[in-house]
Amino acid sequence: MTVRTPDPDPGWLTNSELASARARLPMVYVEALPVRLDDHGRVVEVGLLYRADEAGNFRYSFVSGRVLYMHSIRETLMTHLEKDLGPLAMPQLPTSLVPFTVAEYFPYASSSGLTDDRQHAVALCYVVPVRGDTQPRQDALDVAWMTPEQALSPEITTEFEGGRGKLVTQAMAWANWGF
Amino acid sequence: MTVRTPDPDPGWLTNSELASARARLPMVYVEALPVRLDDHGRVVEVGLLYRADEAGNFRYSFVSGRVLYMHSIRETLMTHLEKDLGPLAMPQLPTSLVPFTVAEYFPYASSSGLTDDRQHAVALCYVVPVRGDTQPRQDALDVAWMTPEQALSPEITTEFEGGRGKLVTQAMAWANWGF
Amino acid sequence: MTVRTPDPDPGWLTNSELASARARLPMVYVEALPVRLDDHGRVVEVGLLYRADEAGNFRYSFVSGRVLYMHSIRETLMTHLEKDLGPLAMPQLPTSLVPFTVAEYFPYASSSGLTDDRQHAVALCYVVPVRGDTQPRQDALDVAWMTPEQALSPEITTEFEGGRGKLVTQAMAWANWGF
Amino acid sequence: MTVRTPDPDPGWLTNSELASARARLPMVYVEALPVRLDDHGRVVEVGLLYRADEAGNFRYSFVSGRVLYMHSIRETLMTHLEKDLGPLAMPQLPTSLVPFTVAEYFPYASSSGLTDDRQHAVALCYVVPVRGDTQPRQDALDVAWMTPEQALSPEITTEFEGGRGKLVTQAMAWANWGF
Repeated sequence: MTVRTPDPDPGWLTNSELASARARLPMVYVEALPVRLDDHGRVVEVGLLYRADEAGNFRYSFVSGRVLYMHSIRETLMTHLEKDLGPLAMPQLPTSLVPFTVAEYFPYASSSGLTDDRQHAVALCYVVPVRGDTQPRQDALDVAWMTPEQALSPEITTEFEGGRGKLVTQAMAWANWGF
Repeated sequence: MTVRTPDPDPGWLTNSELASARARLPMVYVEALPVRLDDHGRVVEVGLLYRADEAGNFRYSFVSGRVLYMHSIRETLMTHLEKDLGPLAMPQLPTSLVPFTVAEYFPYASSSGLTDDRQHAVALCYVVPVRGDTQPRQDALDVAWMTPEQALSPEITTEFEGGRGKLVTQAMAWANWGF
Repeated sequence: MTVRTPDPDPGWLTNSELASARARLPMVYVEALPVRLDDHGRVVEVGLLYRADEAGNFRYSFVSGRVLYMHSIRETLMTHLEKDLGPLAMPQLPTSLVPFTVAEYFPYASSSGLTDDRQHAVALCYVVPVRGDTQPRQDALDVAWMTPEQALSPEITTEFEGGRGKLVTQAMAWANWGF
Repeated sequence: MTVRTPDPDPGWLTNSELASARARLPMVYVEALPVRLDDHGRVVEVGLLYRADEAGNFRYSFVSGRVLYMHSIRETLMTHLEKDLGPLAMPQLPTSLVPFTVAEYFPYASSSGLTDDRQHAVALCYVVPVRGDTQPRQDALDVAWMTPEQALSPEITTEFEGGRGKLVTQAMAWANWGF
């Protein structure tokens, strides 16, 4: 079992072509942090994907997906929210595509503190309110809902893939959550 | 009939005290542009308040309200969205309180192009998705729903109170609508 | 000696009128966190005002000032940057007036975690790059320059007036500093 | 002569490999609109690149460049600002990497109104204040400085490559310029 999202549709690329491109070009990604809001728009819960990596360690992650050729950012967000949260999640996509942060992942020598040993990736990061029920997809063990305070605790932030714990802090700072 | 929202609760101030303060201090306001989104988060319709001013001319405006003493921005937004759009509108308040713009209104000599002959006001401006039905409140003639293209046309933007047509352009630029 | 900025020009209000208004209306403020940037725009140092409060305890704060009647946000920022950092600081005011956060201060029962026992205040918060030399003004003991890492350490963030340590985290999250 | 920026360093890709990748993967770009500010941070001038396309028509464009493998967004911005504006421009890179908009270019069937017949590109767009002198680089005829009002006029916005006139409106809306 792998902590990585399989890439069933590599977008007109064979797997070997994709691997070759990944060694030579930055890839475009979207990432989404699902949240539950109260009726005044305040974040009351944060949803983290939770699954085992190759070594059997449980790790947290965001909803994440590569932008395929000729696919828009909004389509990509919707596809991966549905894939990772299930068909009943009722995500509310952002009105503005301006992200709360732009995350730069490097396979080595990362100056951003974010790493991805497969590739150099530039990810547009969004907070996405969810109104319905989330269902674990096949290769994710769970969607773990917790308070922002819990999500920001060192026990959680250090258990993220690739340094993404930093992105939780940035998301909650943007949402003005009182940490 | 007046184009202005009456201020039934001046917040521990008599009307004459409020008038006096308005001549000496900037007031804090929130403004909201209601929108309808498609399931990918794109703006498909914009809701404008439509009413007659004292001279009988029909004018467009935003949902708008003064932040009262000890009231939060989120409470103020919710109060005025319910008052202006009715109890069934189901507005989705923003996750982040960072506004799409800060509007500065001056009673005269305005350097921003925005005017309000009652007062100097600083308004935090938000785009608010609405999922339910809107009902005209007592002193508004209508909530006029139209496409972003229509809302951005000169026939509409020049018919706003106080130069607010500029804010429609800023809201749609923020939402990345293709104008 | 007081930790508060004296208000030499209460804007067409006597001190007693201002005190009365402060008990009944939210005040509009701007706050600025001075930073030094490298030539790629990365924050390398953060400047904190450092002074003794009435009890003789040293506290950190931001550049901060009330928006006076008929003064613009940009004028208010410039006035208070010059007053608190001296005439040679060469601050670079933001191109966009969209703040990195909106801070709500309450004199009691604060839901935001931010407090100001004088008043209810709504503050627009900006990060302001400074290129010149800063000089302590009369009633500030110092402008303390430190790394973002130091400014985000609990020893510093807990020594801020009114809970503003939270704003440092929000500013650095916005600036994408790798914490 | 071509309106496109030549790509002297295709980033560990031969030209034919880059052409192949461009037909199968979205490319990551940065775009920058150079501006001159007054001392209060207001935009007073906008700098547009001005050059002839293959048909000999003069067209406007932004500073623009592809993010190469293992290069950061800040490095890419700096490289292309220096290349397009000359070594004396003294650009002030943004403190936050959150762009004013994310532009999606498609080679055909564009839903965003932005087109690029070479590729599908996702561009992070920034406003960059410039303090020094700009010099036309080899293949650009000029850097045309004009007022925001001129840059937003239909005579100018319709003369941009790929629909980028829309981005000028978005940049000026973000900067709160009074249009």
